[in-house]
Amino acid sequence: MRILILGGDGYLGWPAAMHFAAAGHTVQAVDNYARRRIAEENNAQPLFATPELEQRARIFQAGSDHRVEAVIGDCADYGFLAGAVRSFSPDAIIHLAEQPSAPYSMMDFEAARYTLNNNLNTTFNVLWTIHEHAPQCHLIKLGTMGEYGTPDIDIEEGWIDISHKGRSDRFLFPRQPGSLYHTSKVFDTDLIWFYVRTWGIRCSDLMQGPVYGLFTEQSKQRPELLPNFHYDDLFGTVLNRFVVQAAAGVPMTVYGKGSQVRGYLNLVDTLQCLTLAAGNPPGEGELRILNQFTETFSVVELAERVKAAAAGLGMAADIKHIANPRKEREEHYYNPRSDGFKALGLKPHLLTADVLAEMIDYAVSLSDNIDVSRIHPRFAWS
Amino acid sequence: MRILILGGDGYLGWPAAMHFAAAGHTVQAVDNYARRRIAEENNAQPLFATPELEQRARIFQAGSDHRVEAVIGDCADYGFLAGAVRSFSPDAIIHLAEQPSAPYSMMDFEAARYTLNNNLNTTFNVLWTIHEHAPQCHLIKLGTMGEYGTPDIDIEEGWIDISHKGRSDRFLFPRQPGSLYHTSKVFDTDLIWFYVRTWGIRCSDLMQGPVYGLFTEQSKQRPELLPNFHYDDLFGTVLNRFVVQAAAGVPMTVYGKGSQVRGYLNLVDTLQCLTLAAGNPPGEGELRILNQFTETFSVVELAERVKAAAAGLGMAADIKHIANPRKEREEHYYNPRSDGFKALGLKPHLLTADVLAEMIDYAVSLSDNIDVSRIHPRFAWS
Repeated sequence: MRILILGGDGYLGWPAAMHFAAAGHTVQAVDNYARRRIAEENNAQPLFATPELEQRARIFQAGSDHRVEAVIGDCADYGFLAGAVRSFSPDAIIHLAEQPSAPYSMMDFEAARYTLNNNLNTTFNVLWTIHEHAPQCHLIKLGTMGEYGTPDIDIEEGWIDISHKGRSDRFLFPRQPGSLYHTSKVFDTDLIWFYVRTWGIRCSDLMQGPVYGLFTEQSKQRPELLPNFHYDDLFGTVLNRFVVQAAAGVPMTVYGKGSQVRGYLNLVDTLQCLTLAAGNPPGEGELRILNQFTETFSVVELAERVKAAAAGLGMAADIKHIANPRKEREEHYYNPRSDGFKALGLKPHLLTADVLAEMIDYAVSLSDNIDVSRIHPRFAWS
Repeated sequence: MRILILGGDGYLGWPAAMHFAAAGHTVQAVDNYARRRIAEENNAQPLFATPELEQRARIFQAGSDHRVEAVIGDCADYGFLAGAVRSFSPDAIIHLAEQPSAPYSMMDFEAARYTLNNNLNTTFNVLWTIHEHAPQCHLIKLGTMGEYGTPDIDIEEGWIDISHKGRSDRFLFPRQPGSLYHTSKVFDTDLIWFYVRTWGIRCSDLMQGPVYGLFTEQSKQRPELLPNFHYDDLFGTVLNRFVVQAAAGVPMTVYGKGSQVRGYLNLVDTLQCLTLAAGNPPGEGELRILNQFTETFSVVELAERVKAAAAGLGMAADIKHIANPRKEREEHYYNPRSDGFKALGLKPHLLTADVLAEMIDYAVSLSDNIDVSRIHPRFAWS
């Protein structure tokens, strides 16, 4: 298969590029380094520096029989994206080319405007490019479980049948996102659904929960191929932040009560889900939505697990509750479905003590790099 | 009240500016002339030329005791908008500053991109401006009934209680828009709801059906104060198109079967609804959604009414079905509620033969201006 990965320098994009190349696919990875730029501008550098995309691709190729073609460019620029799609002629486009930080989207006017415009225009360009240059191409789009928010009813996979006053119809599951970033992903879904109906595009929209982890098959013996690993308040997902705090010997900072529940998954399962989606394309004019997570935890449960894993390594990891910078319900019902990927064959890698110990160990080995001041939330969301 | 009208040169904006000024309010009208520019570029000029906003305001002031302050600028430019809001200090902002044509949004890539970016960034800027410079200001936003599409269940006013697997919650009513323009209005509603929750803004979001009509209290004796009246395939709403076709003695062109049902209202009732909304602001952090129409008709019913009114004037108006350029259900259930404005005191002006005869008469008086080639749809939507 010819697979074009947009956002191929990212936490998910780079491991995905290597993963698909190693599986024998022809892979082109595109990135504009926006995440690197934002991290530099905001003192939010990852735990260790990673080579730029073109260099990573050279390192990967030198140590394997596989190749990732790296292309630097901005997918929000239609001329660039259309040229890339025309020349590469993909069977599938994995669209990860978005500003991925919810806190950044709530930081100030400029960050909010950038998030809104970058994410929506990139998705708009991807849809138009497929329509004009690759109408049979399968769009695999990364959405987020955060699009749904925390409703008081079970969260289905994308759609819901509503009965109302004796009649019924099927709709997109109602969305109530908690940040401007998540709102931009709701817009993506709505925009995709509109053009899927209008043009008959085939799309898998993957509603992913927060991802944790570091090592994948291609990087575990070669640290220079690891993805960027953020632990800061902007880009660091919660479990990765806790692991770094534990490694640094500072308390794990839980936002508010920590009873907020979300669905999580290991980075290796993100790759498995992308593979399953790519291997099972939906039909023409079909928008297939899959919820992408393997387990649900409250924030406090995550902290307790890290604490236990750290204890197993002879380390003390404390938990400290701090004022919640986010505007979110701390006590809420949460029962999301995730049957679709199981039906396609997903074999989950669960959050075991071993998984956590491996992450903590690695963070400890880099503890000189840790700047704990980057972890504390620097602003409130309202 | 100090009322800032964004899009004050438009079909609704200019009559609203005069209406609120005549009622004793302090009115500033802002426009960037985008609709005039798009009409010029696409051979979609209105039935008669209208003076530009500043000149209209002078004519209005010369013939009355009232004043509309005209300001030319682009609300998608945050610096401009923030300056206008800071200096005017409005109690209410009536936000009509959007690219209003569904067909234009489906014409090509550039028109689609402009619609998406103009509409979303303008709404984004309005919300940020209120947050930063006028937090108590009441935002009155023009949405569209087209956000809902044509679901198989009754359309409620903005919200719906959903029971699902033994639990229930309240959500925004599901949206399924039929054009990219309508999709941009769905985004507006979602963006407004997000920032209303986050910042406590007060907002009335008015889901309006297609508007017809021409004369309002302020313009009926002074034709130079009439709003722009479009009858072309881009900006012309369906009833206004039929009236002009009848006046020109050419068949009224019905898209497909013409059994598509929508909720309609007279321009004078738009003014009445805006007045009722402005006089009854919602509380802080409340998003009040009102459906804004007075009667529902199928397209064929509208054509039959124009035919009958024309016959009353001794004119023959034929009906001709043409291929539907839109992608829409022609046979569908449609039962939208509109209780909110009735409860606030709306007294509807219905679509009588007299109303139609007055419109046809006026169009006949300008029949030398009519270019019937502008009416035929110039492209299909998919």
